[in-house]
Amino acid sequence: MSAAETVSAGILVIGDEILSGRTKDKNIGYIAEYLTNLGIEVAEARVVPDDETRIVAALDEMREAYDYVLTTGGIGPTHDDITADCVAKAFGVVISENDEALAMLTSRFPSRELTEARRRMARIPHGARLIENPVSKAPGFEIGNVFVMAGVPAIMQAMLDNVAKRLRTGIRLHVVNIETRIREGDVAGPLRAVQEAFADVAIGSYPYYSDSGFGANVVCRGREPARVEAAAEAIVAALSALGEVRLAPPDAA
Amino acid sequence: MSAAETVSAGILVIGDEILSGRTKDKNIGYIAEYLTNLGIEVAEARVVPDDETRIVAALDEMREAYDYVLTTGGIGPTHDDITADCVAKAFGVVISENDEALAMLTSRFPSRELTEARRRMARIPHGARLIENPVSKAPGFEIGNVFVMAGVPAIMQAMLDNVAKRLRTGIRLHVVNIETRIREGDVAGPLRAVQEAFADVAIGSYPYYSDSGFGANVVCRGREPARVEAAAEAIVAALSALGEVRLAPPDAA
Repeated sequence: MSAAETVSAGILVIGDEILSGRTKDKNIGYIAEYLTNLGIEVAEARVVPDDETRIVAALDEMREAYDYVLTTGGIGPTHDDITADCVAKAFGVVISENDEALAMLTSRFPSRELTEARRRMARIPHGARLIENPVSKAPGFEIGNVFVMAGVPAIMQAMLDNVAKRLRTGIRLHVVNIETRIREGDVAGPLRAVQEAFADVAIGSYPYYSDSGFGANVVCRGREPARVEAAAEAIVAALSALGEVRLAPPDAA
Repeated sequence: MSAAETVSAGILVIGDEILSGRTKDKNIGYIAEYLTNLGIEVAEARVVPDDETRIVAALDEMREAYDYVLTTGGIGPTHDDITADCVAKAFGVVISENDEALAMLTSRFPSRELTEARRRMARIPHGARLIENPVSKAPGFEIGNVFVMAGVPAIMQAMLDNVAKRLRTGIRLHVVNIETRIREGDVAGPLRAVQEAFADVAIGSYPYYSDSGFGANVVCRGREPARVEAAAEAIVAALSALGEVRLAPPDAA
């Protein structure tokens, strides 16, 4: 696939609280689904602690490897919010108070509330373009191929809507979901045979375990809708002798 | 800190379905909290696709960097389950059907159900020790400092209970949680002052945004309980003039 067809992204989640398990990350899944729907392939997600060396290393590795890097976390007002400084360091640029960002903060905070800590949120690496934050005003920013967003999910999600407009999108894959109540060990053989016949369709199987027992759902993805549909039909045909199987509605993708 | 005091771990989540957003990962948060409670520091979490090169590279990087690596996903019966082969490749060992693993599978599946696909789940790298799976029998395994577990949360969680018994644990950190209804920009200044006075206590602040507005909770962590308690008291004293603040019960850690 040429670069024109595929657009890749890495997700970098920054924060001790995720690695201690205190906060359960909700951003990876949200961003992954969002970018996939734009035709952008999420190639990796990584969680690192609030540690400058680790953040800078991950930024450098990921921005080299992927078309885009989206980060969440570490842009608040406290001493452990070091993401903006780390991004400046990774790009080798100066960071200082940004007038536009300060104006956003003053639109929310009367001057007596604009504490030194809050003013820190206006510190932006030079050369960056701001990402508006409609929820709490303190902006994220974009520099090079890196998009820096807040960690609080409601704020991140609002920022992501703004980020999305700036991204080059890829060809969205055609997806067909197949739901079965057949155990994965029974679908595996037929699936392998179909996969061999449809090398251009990615066929994944996702086992589940619920009170009603074991089962596996199947997803077919590919660039050619007709091929994906044909692979899905072949799978339904191959599995229907083994148990309940049905094509799921497309919005369940 | 010496190696005797700190035990580190990395979490490696394997699976296209997490990166497409189709499946929302629940394993990172669960494992992170579990290991933290054992006094093991989770230093990184990473999600990679079902791709041999990427899995082997992540395994090699993480098993070198941390005391332990725990993986989830990719050990089922289907063609896209390639984790065991990748681990064998990373360690440079042969993989083949393991008698003990096969016995576990035959305890569940009558021979007519033990399809070729299911038998694949008995393929284990040489030199590995099995991890029992009380839910669906197909085992995980341990080799070197790597622990390979299933991706389905209910199965992973059962395996993790077995893995935990084999891990060297560190000194569990003493943790005090402080709940506030004060916005993060207002707690930031006082927190920074307390952090400077208590360099041996890690003080984190976690903003939230709910229907009732903005706020921030604070967590103090450290090896010396008395120091952590003292830092927490200093924070409560410093913040109480600014709004509602209270020590949270310890089990909310």
